Amino acid sequence: MVVEPVGVVRSPYREKFAVPRQPGLAALPATLELLPPYDRAEAVRGLEAFSHVWLIFAFHATAAQGWKPTVRPPRLGGNARVGVFATRSTFRPNPLGLSVVRLVGIRTAPGVVLELEGADLLDGTPVFDIKPYLPYADALADARAGFAADGPPPRLAVTFAPAAAAVLAAHPEPRLREWLAAALGLDPRPAYKAGSDGAFGVRLFEFDVRCEVAGGCVTVLELRRA
Amino acid sequence: MVVEPVGVVRSPYREKFAVPRQPGLAALPATLELLPPYDRAEAVRGLEAFSHVWLIFAFHATAAQGWKPTVRPPRLGGNARVGVFATRSTFRPNPLGLSVVRLVGIRTAPGVVLELEGADLLDGTPVFDIKPYLPYADALADARAGFAADGPPPRLAVTFAPAAAAVLAAHPEPRLREWLAAALGLDPRPAYKAGSDGAFGVRLFEFDVRCEVAGGCVTVLELRRA
Repeated sequence: MVVEPVGVVRSPYREKFAVPRQPGLAALPATLELLPPYDRAEAVRGLEAFSHVWLIFAFHATAAQGWKPTVRPPRLGGNARVGVFATRSTFRPNPLGLSVVRLVGIRTAPGVVLELEGADLLDGTPVFDIKPYLPYADALADARAGFAADGPPPRLAVTFAPAAAAVLAAHPEPRLREWLAAALGLDPRPAYKAGSDGAFGVRLFEFDVRCEVAGGCVTVLELRRA
Repeated sequence: MVVEPVGVVRSPYREKFAVPRQPGLAALPATLELLPPYDRAEAVRGLEAFSHVWLIFAFHATAAQGWKPTVRPPRLGGNARVGVFATRSTFRPNPLGLSVVRLVGIRTAPGVVLELEGADLLDGTPVFDIKPYLPYADALADARAGFAADGPPPRLAVTFAPAAAAVLAAHPEPRLREWLAAALGLDPRPAYKAGSDGAFGVRLFEFDVRCEVAGGCVTVLELRRA
């Protein structure tokens, strides 16, 4: 079956290592811009009454790598192999992703744009479907989850060195500091580096962000426009 | 993007009117048979630890009818129009469905078969992806749902006339009575007929089921092998 994008995500996550491992972990802003012929106000009429939406999207950055029958979930330390269908790994037979995100607003002129929060989606992600989150059907009180039963690991503390703080102070978006701290507190490094000390860089919003990890704390050393 | 089925559902729902409007409403059995080259035990290794799975599937019976920018949800009595993206209607730009179903067992020889319960899927539904249900990410305690905030309407009482009861008594599956009652109690008629009295027929399991509705009660008159 051929599926075509109904919209495209614009998000602060400009490379895959920056993307949280599940939606809802960091309340950063993102948008979903509907594409013609779907960019009609009537197609989203009534959606404003829902607080969250499901997005079915493409893992477009990794789709070319194909599928693997087993994968090594970061949750298991990157060592144990489990079946791809027992994970939300990107290396699936069909590179389809599924995320529930908060819907904070809808703009309908010009075009149609959904304002989102908590998306775990790379900038430029193609979206194939938008469905309302239905608590009575989707929020299962009695569900049991094997190796992914617990929530994410505790967040790292994030501080800004003077050079980085100066960039934030001069930036028009007052919430940028909070957003960067939320993203970096999740430790956006690959699983095999998580928990260890050292320097790393990541692209978030319009910045190349240079950081240093020491003793469970992230220091943002530099914010350079990419 | 081209997506291909990884499996096919076998369910008691042989026509679309019989299918519950959401998953989890009736605990009928169904299976998901993986197709080659995905029918490998290793691809589902670890999945047995999860009580529920998400299925992304095709609305294959209605896909040829295309999409509509607005639809009339049964929930609103079939009168008010809302945007297709504010509903789980089948008439979507991409005919993709999303359901969470209970996983009751996995058979891995020969082939790979997931044993499901509570599926709202037509027999023969092609499935594009299987993902574990992650309570900490998917079960949102604070979600708000507009016109679909309440659960389904109350169930109808279901009784079996002597001719139908005799067929059940001779059938090898002892739970068939319970399953038929669960499906028929949801009133599988189109929304515009729901709540009114009269006769109807529906295909469930291997039967053409003839029923009569009167005063909020369904009487099963006849079970004829289709």
